[in-house]
Amino acid sequence: MDRGDLFVVSAPSGAGKTTLCSMLVNEIDNIVFSVSHTTRPPRPGEVDGKDYHFVSEQEFERLVAEDAFLEWARVHGNFYGTHRGQVMEKLAQGLDVILDIDVQGAKQVKKKLPAAITIFILPPSWHVLEERLRKRGSEDADKIKLRLQNAMKEIEEVTNYHYTVVNDELHEAFLELKTIVLAERSKTRRVLANKVDLSALKPGPDSWFLS
Amino acid sequence: MDRGDLFVVSAPSGAGKTTLCSMLVNEIDNIVFSVSHTTRPPRPGEVDGKDYHFVSEQEFERLVAEDAFLEWARVHGNFYGTHRGQVMEKLAQGLDVILDIDVQGAKQVKKKLPAAITIFILPPSWHVLEERLRKRGSEDADKIKLRLQNAMKEIEEVTNYHYTVVNDELHEAFLELKTIVLAERSKTRRVLANKVDLSALKPGPDSWFLS
Repeated sequence: MDRGDLFVVSAPSGAGKTTLCSMLVNEIDNIVFSVSHTTRPPRPGEVDGKDYHFVSEQEFERLVAEDAFLEWARVHGNFYGTHRGQVMEKLAQGLDVILDIDVQGAKQVKKKLPAAITIFILPPSWHVLEERLRKRGSEDADKIKLRLQNAMKEIEEVTNYHYTVVNDELHEAFLELKTIVLAERSKTRRVLANKVDLSALKPGPDSWFLS
Repeated sequence: MDRGDLFVVSAPSGAGKTTLCSMLVNEIDNIVFSVSHTTRPPRPGEVDGKDYHFVSEQEFERLVAEDAFLEWARVHGNFYGTHRGQVMEKLAQGLDVILDIDVQGAKQVKKKLPAAITIFILPPSWHVLEERLRKRGSEDADKIKLRLQNAMKEIEEVTNYHYTVVNDELHEAFLELKTIVLAERSKTRRVLANKVDLSALKPGPDSWFLS
């Protein structure tokens, strides 16, 4: 039985998901990102095995055929996937693994790993979401409207997630996310696997009770 | 749909359950104890409706016949019960309710209210449990052995509880318990009922997106 948990975090763009997930990995012990496989070429400074596992299309297709991915997708002509074996290995080591993926990827993961814990990050209101995306200033109106169009569809999926964190104030949202991760560590399965041995909770040969 | 959650907390005697539950109610907002009904006469200083609802045996039996209790039991000739309607009323107000009850009572509650969240408090080891009970000094050896006998049976039930808190160091155990209660408040059902309205997460008539 796995000793860690897989956390799947989704959100519409502009909700602050990536920032929140990074805070979680930086500020809590024993939780790590999953390193994705991709066919996209490395950008300057990116390290193979740390930022991504950079693989050829042929290799990626082989892994898809082997059902090696918990989820995969094609984005702008490149493939991205989450390798099941690598996630399972970390869980078995007692690490929590965090997957920062969209609602489609989350659906694939839930099918293959029903024990995954799903968290949705919501903006506090539609108005705030619009403002955040427009203030980024790096995209034209059409592209922002496309993101908002997607956001509208994605937000409808919130009811399929176990937990929901409203990111109004960043630090507050981070504390909620942290609370969710830490509470899962108190689930009975995890406590009995990691923290206390039921055999230590029976009278031993030298106990007063049996004297 | 209820806006609060019912937390059922069980433990063998000596695990520190009552202390931990009191800390929770004193230090967290919006969580209250359920006030039990009992046929036991009030002790000096006990207030009807605050410490217990003091009722006659006839009244208690009427309530049992009406299926008004989430759980009830007879202890040392007196009846004790948890009134379902009173618990539901508090949950509907958005309050969390905490029930400090034994494993038998917890089983009854889970049957009637499957959404209840169950937490087991464990001592760190059998040896510590023995020491704690013996150091109390208020009971003779036979009575302590009877408690330990019960503890052994109760501890076997831990695997039926959602969460487990090991009470080694009291403050640490309290923080874990608090984390569990707060994380449940981030469950999607609760966030959508109490914190954010999905209709506020769609573009309104004045939104830029629709312009």
